[in-house]
Amino acid sequence: MVEIAGAGQGITPMELAQATRNRGMPLEALEHDLTPTGLHYLLVHFDIPALDPASWRLRVGGNVTTELELTLDQIRERPAATIPVTLECAGNGRARLEPRPMTQPWLNEAVATASWTGTPLRSVLEEAGVAPNTVEIVFTGADHGIEGGEELDYARSLPLTDALRAEVLLAYEMNGRPLEPQHGFPLRLLVPGWYGMTSVKWLARITAVTEPFRGLHQAVAYHYQRTEDDDPGEPVTRIRPRALMIPPGFPDFPERRRYVDCGPVSIRGRAWSGSAPISRVEVGIDGDWFDAALAEPVGEWAWRGWTYEWEAAPGHHVLLCRATDETGEVQPLEQPWNVQGVGNNLAQEVPVTVR
Amino acid sequence: MVEIAGAGQGITPMELAQATRNRGMPLEALEHDLTPTGLHYLLVHFDIPALDPASWRLRVGGNVTTELELTLDQIRERPAATIPVTLECAGNGRARLEPRPMTQPWLNEAVATASWTGTPLRSVLEEAGVAPNTVEIVFTGADHGIEGGEELDYARSLPLTDALRAEVLLAYEMNGRPLEPQHGFPLRLLVPGWYGMTSVKWLARITAVTEPFRGLHQAVAYHYQRTEDDDPGEPVTRIRPRALMIPPGFPDFPERRRYVDCGPVSIRGRAWSGSAPISRVEVGIDGDWFDAALAEPVGEWAWRGWTYEWEAAPGHHVLLCRATDETGEVQPLEQPWNVQGVGNNLAQEVPVTVR
Repeated sequence: MVEIAGAGQGITPMELAQATRNRGMPLEALEHDLTPTGLHYLLVHFDIPALDPASWRLRVGGNVTTELELTLDQIRERPAATIPVTLECAGNGRARLEPRPMTQPWLNEAVATASWTGTPLRSVLEEAGVAPNTVEIVFTGADHGIEGGEELDYARSLPLTDALRAEVLLAYEMNGRPLEPQHGFPLRLLVPGWYGMTSVKWLARITAVTEPFRGLHQAVAYHYQRTEDDDPGEPVTRIRPRALMIPPGFPDFPERRRYVDCGPVSIRGRAWSGSAPISRVEVGIDGDWFDAALAEPVGEWAWRGWTYEWEAAPGHHVLLCRATDETGEVQPLEQPWNVQGVGNNLAQEVPVTVR
Repeated sequence: MVEIAGAGQGITPMELAQATRNRGMPLEALEHDLTPTGLHYLLVHFDIPALDPASWRLRVGGNVTTELELTLDQIRERPAATIPVTLECAGNGRARLEPRPMTQPWLNEAVATASWTGTPLRSVLEEAGVAPNTVEIVFTGADHGIEGGEELDYARSLPLTDALRAEVLLAYEMNGRPLEPQHGFPLRLLVPGWYGMTSVKWLARITAVTEPFRGLHQAVAYHYQRTEDDDPGEPVTRIRPRALMIPPGFPDFPERRRYVDCGPVSIRGRAWSGSAPISRVEVGIDGDWFDAALAEPVGEWAWRGWTYEWEAAPGHHVLLCRATDETGEVQPLEQPWNVQGVGNNLAQEVPVTVR
């Protein structure tokens, strides 16, 4: 399904078309605890649907006692929760791989944190009455197209135990306002801790199933394949630990090299993991590693800030950062390649010129 | 200043870094009269400044009777106007040029329409008392970096007569809310009808000058140069006429080819010009041209909708559209190349497969 570019090949017209539609979060936006809506990263497989909230319905069915058909007003009247959540695209970092998988060419910017408001999925599943032999819940969006030679709606599943977790929401607000169209208006799934492909946008149907879902976006895409032909790979699930820094100083245009005034420099950034709290962030300066000071997390499912005070001397320097979470997982310094270019959490490298 | 790519060269890492930070408006968002804030196109030369509205001041000086220093609250207390404005990047369409100028690689998507609220610039200039021998007003932003080998703040000027036009605003709201950081918070210039580089974001200073401003972004960048070395070129000013369509049907991923069901298809889009109202939109189907029906403009300075009802027969087809404005200017079908790749309004071409 995923094509691979030859070594050293320039970005293709297809990749440019993707990069023009999708959008990273410019890294200076790591400044904000909550990313302004228009700076949130975005990855859309097909077209952004234009849905009429008056006629839109959420249908809950499959292996349930009572099928439900809910209006947006009915969903908004249910118990609500608001939580800050860091979302990251599973393909973040892909464009740095060599050879390079041919799809959305992310550098480092496919991450953001917003405040999401919605009703817990669990209460909706309880109301529908999920039958005992259910293994997964399938979430189907209204976004439609062709992928892997197949015409289909975007759809993903969650194991029932994950779907019942308290933090999983049916979200209708982002940063205190109704979802903008590109973020799933009128309703999206929100699965904190998991890579973004799990949080199905433009949600149309929720279906309880008794066999693992085999849809393309679940069973083929988003797998850690070592080879294209004979390794289906393990599924991509939770977000791997990552730290990113705000590139210090100022850039040139259009090359975006960094220039820093000599003297004290606060190197600041954010770190997150979908599996466990971040326990450590290290900053690398020309090959030596130093511990950064950690701020309180923005929330249980959101990034935490970090700072390292650097005394910058004139010359060229290479800055890195890497995060460790409480499971002990630490970001790699060499990239573990995989066919689809997913789960890439190679440490960020920022060359700077100090003057 | 602008480098040129060799024929057939893939998109470079620099261009990818720009395309990942900047963002086009996915063309299905032509659906909306007013573009949701997070779907508005964005072009930022340097980093997005993080400005504190409490300490921020707008300074008005130079060749004036009374220097002003205004707080954001003082600006918000002045007479306000709200107008829908279509903005387009002067570089829109650049990535399709051959050879290709090496900077932000736009396809067709660097356009959007928002509702902007602010106070007329004219009343601020009148209060400051612009002296009679003033020729231009210079607008300096807080965005800082290196360009063309020079460290500078982004700055542009307007001839005094243009600066005094009633529709030119100092804007502090977009779509009814305070500007998001990437759109110039807390205050930006808004010059309806002109390409976007004119509407300086993160506005810090307004300066009346008695000689034409020679800053890089005014005197070197944004010129229609035919050759790099011996033609300084005419300055880029008003937006040339353009029509864009919502690509019909649905796409495949990641290639974004279009598939359409056979039968009646409404081809819809928007058209705009910075010089005069749009008087005609034509749709090209496999080489024949047909007039589209025009809707009322969203506003005097905003795009207007158009529709063409097509009876789609199975097979491959090439759809085009082109706009004409009341000055008689019509979009070209062959691209007039220029060094910086500015003002490219070549007619959009959308190949589709009807099934």
